[in-house]
Amino acid sequence: MTKPDWIAIDWGTTHLRAWGMTGSGTVLQTVKSDRGMGTLARDQFEGALFDLIGDWGCSGPMIACGMVGSRQGWVEAPYATTPCPPLGYGLAKAPGPRVDVHVISGIKQLQPADVMRGEETQIAGFLSLNPKWDGVICLPGTHTKWVHVSADEVISFQTFMTGEMFALLSGQSVLRHSIGDGWDDAAFANAVSEAMSKPEAMAARLFNLRANELVNGQCRDAARARLSGLLIGAELAAARPYWLGQSVAVLGAGGLAKIYTAAITAQGVPVIQTDGDRATLAGLTAAYRRMKAAT
Amino acid sequence: MTKPDWIAIDWGTTHLRAWGMTGSGTVLQTVKSDRGMGTLARDQFEGALFDLIGDWGCSGPMIACGMVGSRQGWVEAPYATTPCPPLGYGLAKAPGPRVDVHVISGIKQLQPADVMRGEETQIAGFLSLNPKWDGVICLPGTHTKWVHVSADEVISFQTFMTGEMFALLSGQSVLRHSIGDGWDDAAFANAVSEAMSKPEAMAARLFNLRANELVNGQCRDAARARLSGLLIGAELAAARPYWLGQSVAVLGAGGLAKIYTAAITAQGVPVIQTDGDRATLAGLTAAYRRMKAAT
Repeated sequence: MTKPDWIAIDWGTTHLRAWGMTGSGTVLQTVKSDRGMGTLARDQFEGALFDLIGDWGCSGPMIACGMVGSRQGWVEAPYATTPCPPLGYGLAKAPGPRVDVHVISGIKQLQPADVMRGEETQIAGFLSLNPKWDGVICLPGTHTKWVHVSADEVISFQTFMTGEMFALLSGQSVLRHSIGDGWDDAAFANAVSEAMSKPEAMAARLFNLRANELVNGQCRDAARARLSGLLIGAELAAARPYWLGQSVAVLGAGGLAKIYTAAITAQGVPVIQTDGDRATLAGLTAAYRRMKAAT
Repeated sequence: MTKPDWIAIDWGTTHLRAWGMTGSGTVLQTVKSDRGMGTLARDQFEGALFDLIGDWGCSGPMIACGMVGSRQGWVEAPYATTPCPPLGYGLAKAPGPRVDVHVISGIKQLQPADVMRGEETQIAGFLSLNPKWDGVICLPGTHTKWVHVSADEVISFQTFMTGEMFALLSGQSVLRHSIGDGWDDAAFANAVSEAMSKPEAMAARLFNLRANELVNGQCRDAARARLSGLLIGAELAAARPYWLGQSVAVLGAGGLAKIYTAAITAQGVPVIQTDGDRATLAGLTAAYRRMKAAT
């Protein structure tokens, strides 16, 4: 087995992924585990990583992004402050004798207050794949980010808890009794449009998903799509200063990126969709190259 | 111990309360338990009630309201349909040889779909305490109801999940790390006003409660009041057709009724506040009297 020259690491709250890389950016190995930052005490990070890549025989550096760099992580990588390049503050070296790990800093915004960790690496990767790109990047997830990028800098950004709200409302609130596992594209599109045209009525629409099943026997699959559409519609209404008149890139994969793309496209905004994992790896590679160039 | 002539019962999802009553409406005994509808199978209701009031020696009827009358309850008491008097459909008799229990029907609205169970009794009670009252009744709770009442009928109503949203966001979402146990009246009032003046920006404000602590060290007590204010402000924005130009009665007690009263009063709307338990008991008494008059 070829020994990698360096290792790329994506270490979030709930997951850990590592890629063995050549100096020219070819992927040799890929592994993942569920030993995310949230499951580890500070002195357990090195062991968790070594368990995963110890037999790769890599003597080169390792570049990591994500919540591994938070206060509760392996090493606190201080936030850069907007406006700044996506890899603004560079790297923080993690403590540990067996591995040479460098963690990418997150980005904070002072007013309105906001923070990101991990997304800055995807943004750097997207920009390395799309040089000189200006516009707005939407990164759907548990906490979706809208990021205004210009001249290779993060100008401003905004986080929405839409994904977490959907999980709580569909899984734990009274609405769970009325929400099925399926989907309905038309119900989603109608709900997005309804929420955007009258966002001030939003709070009145949620319990209606329950009552509509009790009173009118509303389909539970349609109810799932409708809840998602109401929440994403409310997000789009609040994120209007970001996407209006801009070109938008949706960074992600799977169903969530697809429905965000559908909802944004329905506003007449041109959207390009890019795979999120590809952007992560490109960002880690950009950080590696920058480190090599500096030494 | 004087035997009660009849028994009043408030039986919700999480609680069971009973009052021993004289025919003229005096309370002789009060008991409560946590054996709410949600904890009981259909054949366990009679036992749970008998455990509580079996030794009172009451041979008269018992009048119950709340989720005990739902499909998952002791007996399904069909919904009356708006517009209707609050005690619209009268009573459904519960099965059981040892007790003579009559359950008050809930109310449904067809368009927009909505349902209530238990609140109709509080509304009937409020109207018996305030004859010929016309206006809007606000019943704060896990699911707050706004109810338009005119000429002794429920004309229309709307349910808001504000209380449940607050519990989920403050207790289970990422915001829980930034929310304390205290309170801040000014932060609440400012958040209500902010949410009402720009309800379309609502979705952008939630994660800000987390980021503001990370970036600016925002006080956790203020964050609790601010989350409550944002959610209640969004509710008031959506409920505007109910309260605008109306006189409003807030039915409830304690902190939640107090902050709703403060938020509504701040809109220049005159508010009267009435104790919710008193309204419940007055409503059960009204139902008892109606049953006696009919037999």
